[in-house]
Amino acid sequence: MVYPDTFEGFAIVDSAKWSEAEKYEFEPKPFEDYDVDVAIDVCSICGSDAHAARNGWGKTAYPLVVGHEIIGKVVKVGSKVTNFKVGDRVGVGAQSQACLECKLCKSNNEIYCTKLVHTFGSLYHNKDGTTTKSQGGYSNYCRIHEYFVFPIPEVYTDEEAAPFLCAGITTYSPLVRNIPTNLPEGVRPKVGIVGLGGLGMMGIQFAKALGAETYVFSRTDAKKADAIALGAEHFIATENEGWVKEVEFDLDMILCTANSNENFDLNTYLRALKIGGKWVSVGLPESPFTVSPRSFMANACFMGASHLGSHVEMLEMFKLSEEKGIKPWVETLEASFEGVKEGLEKCHYNKCKYRVALSGFQKAFN
Amino acid sequence: MVYPDTFEGFAIVDSAKWSEAEKYEFEPKPFEDYDVDVAIDVCSICGSDAHAARNGWGKTAYPLVVGHEIIGKVVKVGSKVTNFKVGDRVGVGAQSQACLECKLCKSNNEIYCTKLVHTFGSLYHNKDGTTTKSQGGYSNYCRIHEYFVFPIPEVYTDEEAAPFLCAGITTYSPLVRNIPTNLPEGVRPKVGIVGLGGLGMMGIQFAKALGAETYVFSRTDAKKADAIALGAEHFIATENEGWVKEVEFDLDMILCTANSNENFDLNTYLRALKIGGKWVSVGLPESPFTVSPRSFMANACFMGASHLGSHVEMLEMFKLSEEKGIKPWVETLEASFEGVKEGLEKCHYNKCKYRVALSGFQKAFN
Repeated sequence: MVYPDTFEGFAIVDSAKWSEAEKYEFEPKPFEDYDVDVAIDVCSICGSDAHAARNGWGKTAYPLVVGHEIIGKVVKVGSKVTNFKVGDRVGVGAQSQACLECKLCKSNNEIYCTKLVHTFGSLYHNKDGTTTKSQGGYSNYCRIHEYFVFPIPEVYTDEEAAPFLCAGITTYSPLVRNIPTNLPEGVRPKVGIVGLGGLGMMGIQFAKALGAETYVFSRTDAKKADAIALGAEHFIATENEGWVKEVEFDLDMILCTANSNENFDLNTYLRALKIGGKWVSVGLPESPFTVSPRSFMANACFMGASHLGSHVEMLEMFKLSEEKGIKPWVETLEASFEGVKEGLEKCHYNKCKYRVALSGFQKAFN
Repeated sequence: MVYPDTFEGFAIVDSAKWSEAEKYEFEPKPFEDYDVDVAIDVCSICGSDAHAARNGWGKTAYPLVVGHEIIGKVVKVGSKVTNFKVGDRVGVGAQSQACLECKLCKSNNEIYCTKLVHTFGSLYHNKDGTTTKSQGGYSNYCRIHEYFVFPIPEVYTDEEAAPFLCAGITTYSPLVRNIPTNLPEGVRPKVGIVGLGGLGMMGIQFAKALGAETYVFSRTDAKKADAIALGAEHFIATENEGWVKEVEFDLDMILCTANSNENFDLNTYLRALKIGGKWVSVGLPESPFTVSPRSFMANACFMGASHLGSHVEMLEMFKLSEEKGIKPWVETLEASFEGVKEGLEKCHYNKCKYRVALSGFQKAFN
């Protein structure tokens, strides 16, 4: 297939105009032996896209093409690529490189490799000594090491498949790593999911699929019906004072998908954990956590975080999802200036149920 | 045996004179069916004693008799006591009551019971509707529910046995609960112990006895020889810049026995943890923890705390200790005004190696 040497995307150029993209041509990293070039069809919108567009972590270097829930078709493979051939439908998530040689990479923890490159906004250190800024999936093509490219089960449309690549793996990995597997026979693990947005929507379904009795925590009752439809067995509105009494000392783990820790009563949430239970945050708030030592001491609980998930977990996640019929709820918008704007804003203001996919990147740029 | 209805102890009466005790008579809680009265011989000095004496947590109600590493002999047993008889040598730790009926108590987590009473400075809610303030072990007698009274192996002197009751169980419980048991055959868990004082001294020995390769972290090299003598295989002085490189992504868990979180670089310590590793604090600092979410996200680590340990763990701890020859390092002082003063000050200023036991409470008061 013929395609250009430089790629093109919808770039954000200024935090003050964080939802108003401009078309932007960029040079991909040099093509290497394990690389795969993908012609992008669909990219769904992750909270991180809006956060980075707004310079929420204070590290955004503009112009930036965001997007890391990518579905497309392989258009070129490097000489050492063995898993893919031209024409395959594939997915790309938020990680695009790791050393693949350190002890972390060799133990299915490549996501914690210190040489990690993120799909957008990071820096590739190329073999020829140059560096290339990584640009994301709101574009016509991407170039990625095959280890970070994934086959997509046929049962999913492109739009349905895309959110698995970040929202999916980000919730699947901490659940599968931390839901206890040593409970007495007949005792189901109890899992709490804080927040029902793009990540919560996936987390609820995975927690159920992994056998857990699932509790959803949200500020109001507004999303109760959706939570139940997604597989939750319990719904707790935290605007009701004393809500924690219902679950005190009860949950094996809580997965927090909230992106902010302002006005967030972490000390109360921790009381919902069983002795030794775990709070795992997958949001990345801008301000530090402040926690009283007494909160931990009351039930010997733990607080931690998780980042994306591994290659192996990605494959397992798709397998489980196909078996259990897990499916993201997705709205589709056109891959256009208007679509990017509407999608980023819907995402940032929590106005979608529960993911927006941008579709038609080939048409937009070719 | 004849003994008085009111007990007598060395009480601290003012935070400004936190090491200068006065003799003080106090009424014990009403004697109930499961209670055991113990004539105290030895009480060793825990960091909490000095901390409470100084009103470090801002909650001390004076006059207060501290002390919760108690060894003595049973002088009276309630009608329903089955485990002890008059004359038995026993130990009493930092917990003296729990409901023993809730789901926590019934799952060997009575230490987290919301009706917990601490051996000193807490309030008993008596069956007759009255309340009694609990007073600790720097005294001639104590009255405790038999569930919180423990038999002492003959191999230990009173002075050697005393530190197990708090320093011992406080470090044993989080180690036995959190050292991973599912490592591949031949792979030993790696455990870090932060701080070598009364708690660290016990923690090092337990970690070794539980099969771990043990690392001790201390500010300077001053305690290196002691750490090795106690069973550590590695010693890291954290005043050396870049110390974390030696253990980055390496430890399954770190047990922190430091009592303060000032000038304490928690974010660096967390980097020493394996993916999913756990930081467990057993000190209770006065100020909150402040942690960057990115610190957790770098290795999916967890931070938590632990409080004492359960009845079952106390029995297991003594069994393991006897088998493996675990023995606290103890200096003995006389149970007297001078001994209390010197002991509390040695403890507070970290001048002892590594525990002070006060001996001779029967002589002091009778």
